[in-house]
Amino acid sequence: MTLNMDLKALKKEVYEQNLELVSRGLVIYTWGNVSAIDRENNLVVIKPKGLEYDDLTADDMSVVDMDGNLIEGLLPSVDLDIHLEIYKAFPEVGGIAHTHSTWATAWAQACKGIPVMGTTHADHFYGEVPCVRQLTPEEVDGEYEKNLGLIIAETFKGRNPLEMGAVLAPGHGPFTWGKDAKASVEHSVILEEMAKMAKLSMDINGGAAPMLPDYMTTKHYTRKYGADAYFYQEK
Amino acid sequence: MTLNMDLKALKKEVYEQNLELVSRGLVIYTWGNVSAIDRENNLVVIKPKGLEYDDLTADDMSVVDMDGNLIEGLLPSVDLDIHLEIYKAFPEVGGIAHTHSTWATAWAQACKGIPVMGTTHADHFYGEVPCVRQLTPEEVDGEYEKNLGLIIAETFKGRNPLEMGAVLAPGHGPFTWGKDAKASVEHSVILEEMAKMAKLSMDINGGAAPMLPDYMTTKHYTRKYGADAYFYQEK
Amino acid sequence: MTLNMDLKALKKEVYEQNLELVSRGLVIYTWGNVSAIDRENNLVVIKPKGLEYDDLTADDMSVVDMDGNLIEGLLPSVDLDIHLEIYKAFPEVGGIAHTHSTWATAWAQACKGIPVMGTTHADHFYGEVPCVRQLTPEEVDGEYEKNLGLIIAETFKGRNPLEMGAVLAPGHGPFTWGKDAKASVEHSVILEEMAKMAKLSMDINGGAAPMLPDYMTTKHYTRKYGADAYFYQEK
Amino acid sequence: MTLNMDLKALKKEVYEQNLELVSRGLVIYTWGNVSAIDRENNLVVIKPKGLEYDDLTADDMSVVDMDGNLIEGLLPSVDLDIHLEIYKAFPEVGGIAHTHSTWATAWAQACKGIPVMGTTHADHFYGEVPCVRQLTPEEVDGEYEKNLGLIIAETFKGRNPLEMGAVLAPGHGPFTWGKDAKASVEHSVILEEMAKMAKLSMDINGGAAPMLPDYMTTKHYTRKYGADAYFYQEK
Repeated sequence: MTLNMDLKALKKEVYEQNLELVSRGLVIYTWGNVSAIDRENNLVVIKPKGLEYDDLTADDMSVVDMDGNLIEGLLPSVDLDIHLEIYKAFPEVGGIAHTHSTWATAWAQACKGIPVMGTTHADHFYGEVPCVRQLTPEEVDGEYEKNLGLIIAETFKGRNPLEMGAVLAPGHGPFTWGKDAKASVEHSVILEEMAKMAKLSMDINGGAAPMLPDYMTTKHYTRKYGADAYFYQEK
Repeated sequence: MTLNMDLKALKKEVYEQNLELVSRGLVIYTWGNVSAIDRENNLVVIKPKGLEYDDLTADDMSVVDMDGNLIEGLLPSVDLDIHLEIYKAFPEVGGIAHTHSTWATAWAQACKGIPVMGTTHADHFYGEVPCVRQLTPEEVDGEYEKNLGLIIAETFKGRNPLEMGAVLAPGHGPFTWGKDAKASVEHSVILEEMAKMAKLSMDINGGAAPMLPDYMTTKHYTRKYGADAYFYQEK
Repeated sequence: MTLNMDLKALKKEVYEQNLELVSRGLVIYTWGNVSAIDRENNLVVIKPKGLEYDDLTADDMSVVDMDGNLIEGLLPSVDLDIHLEIYKAFPEVGGIAHTHSTWATAWAQACKGIPVMGTTHADHFYGEVPCVRQLTPEEVDGEYEKNLGLIIAETFKGRNPLEMGAVLAPGHGPFTWGKDAKASVEHSVILEEMAKMAKLSMDINGGAAPMLPDYMTTKHYTRKYGADAYFYQEK
Repeated sequence: MTLNMDLKALKKEVYEQNLELVSRGLVIYTWGNVSAIDRENNLVVIKPKGLEYDDLTADDMSVVDMDGNLIEGLLPSVDLDIHLEIYKAFPEVGGIAHTHSTWATAWAQACKGIPVMGTTHADHFYGEVPCVRQLTPEEVDGEYEKNLGLIIAETFKGRNPLEMGAVLAPGHGPFTWGKDAKASVEHSVILEEMAKMAKLSMDINGGAAPMLPDYMTTKHYTRKYGADAYFYQEK
């Protein structure tokens, strides 16, 4: 019963956060996908594959176990295995979003990480947003999506994934994550804005990346998320 | 009777897909046109020329035969002959769209094809979106629109047009196609987004086009449209 | 009576076309102004100066004679004299619009005319959209707005102003015109789109302006507006 | 009583102007903040920190004295001390806005002031919008926000702050001000548009900043705000 109740709420959240990607202008057609994990029951809820948002309801969300077996709902997104590997590697992660948002994808297509050029970046991501290595032909011929997930996990080994909730897949686009689905989508929105600003400030600077001093990066990140953070309040 | 019934539905679809170009932000004023073909009766339905969308209804759509003779409705778009030549050359094509959308047109004005820089491109178009050769003064003085259609047909000779549903007319803008009018409009929308990303990733890369490896292009195209495609599902 | 009736209609048109600039995204706050002329009575209707659109009604539109004397309504836009000089120089012109729209203004700020890079341009403006010379300190100290109008008139001497319904004031922004206020606003909208495309296609082309062949320019302009035009139809 | 009545109105204005930043597209999530000052009672009203707009009402606005002590409402924005130093240094200033708007932030990230490239700029800001110097590690470790406010005050020493209602914090973003909160937000909106135009006209000009002649800058600024200004009227 509890399981079913929680699942219903999680499916609703995943459904709504998928729609949030659309209303924020990050996703057209069937592009993009959001998932969330129920850590207690080891179940992942994700957008079904290859269907338009107009055809989907919260009940249609795919529920799978950690091996990708379908528990209920429609067939899961083809990107499921990428999500699963990230969940397996990082117990802190509760939600994952993937988009082809314009500016973040442009950086991914250029195969370049996004260095910290300003406090907008430092307020949300602690350091350069990395672009992982390209997959080999063998990795693509094999379990393509799983291998991309493994490369992401490998890249972040030893890091706190909540301090860097975004990664670029080269030639592909961004994946973002956070403590839940809502946080993962917020990171997608912020990454897109940051990616645009970074490109524009580079241009204004004559092509070179104008770097924010490290002490500014640390100050801005820690005033929001550090041990002595003073940015937020509860109402 | 069947003919009339089918035509009515086709006119409605063509009308709606023309409006879809407007609501997607690809078309202002009277710019752009969408057509569809009834292969059984060899009739083409296309937006009438030189009238604002507010003045048009589904009934006004122009119906012509394969020689361009008006069967019913208002006078057809001046670009009719371009559409007709594409339909004649490619029996697989069921719908065609033409826009002056900003970023795709910028590539067309630069007289450059759009190389595959990412999976967003490879997911929908299998290879570089070609820019055809410019027409000669003689071709422009003659049957201008027909000649442009012939050049497009010539450029795609021997290819499966459904694997490359877009072309750029140099100094002009994009034409896209698909199995029906809806697919042709989707290709216009996706092409515009892709054209923007391609330009931005080139800039981030210092001007050079960052190419997606061929094996990635093939993987992404075929997971959606190949013999073993696993991207879509029916609900 | 007839005069009053016509004036009322003209004031309504000018009011609505001023609002059209806002809804098309070309104008924020009090920026921009549209006027129209009643050639029979030599009266010009123009947006009042220095008031937000929310505070204005059609009745508030300023009516002035050809010397700028206020006949009725609120005080006219500070740019009135620019409009008056254009009306005096070109009897074919029935309406004028001025905006600080982003991309056209960027060209104006660069003090560069916009060359014909594509058929979107050639469909509406027959040749390069000129940027006039900068005013001298003396011209600015004197009757600034009148002098700018005179420079525009001088630049277009001997040309049919309906074939080139746009000009850039250097360091300032675009002025557009047409047979009436609606046409002048359409030219502002199209100019903005064209200015954006031109900049982007230049970038894609490595900085150089990719020119449309002259025979293409002539073909596209004349199929819409030439003696043998075949683009438009009445419904 | 009077105090309470005025405060209520000021809190409403600050609340509405914070929302205006969102509806103008300058702010997402909790980014940005607007404040206003009651000079008679030396009280500042500012957006509370770390809460989404949906969770806030006018009554929640923070009221503080000139030392930052909370008088009523929720805890103030972490940027409060920046606002306070600006109010202390410039008695003419009645309202302050801070955003991370895309284009102005891109200039700030490039650590470059925005030179006067056109009359859109000169109409509202009399000269180059300055980018202040970066804070030292010591200044960041100390009272970070207060120190940024002091640097801004130092940069504007001896100037009339109403003639230059904007500044860029390097690697961070814009702060704007005016006679009241509404004016400060208008300056944020105009700065963003100007920052975009400046970047684009520089690009069109091959990278170099195309400067507006000084006599044009003075003419445009003074026809709106000089002793003999003739731009505005009351209705």
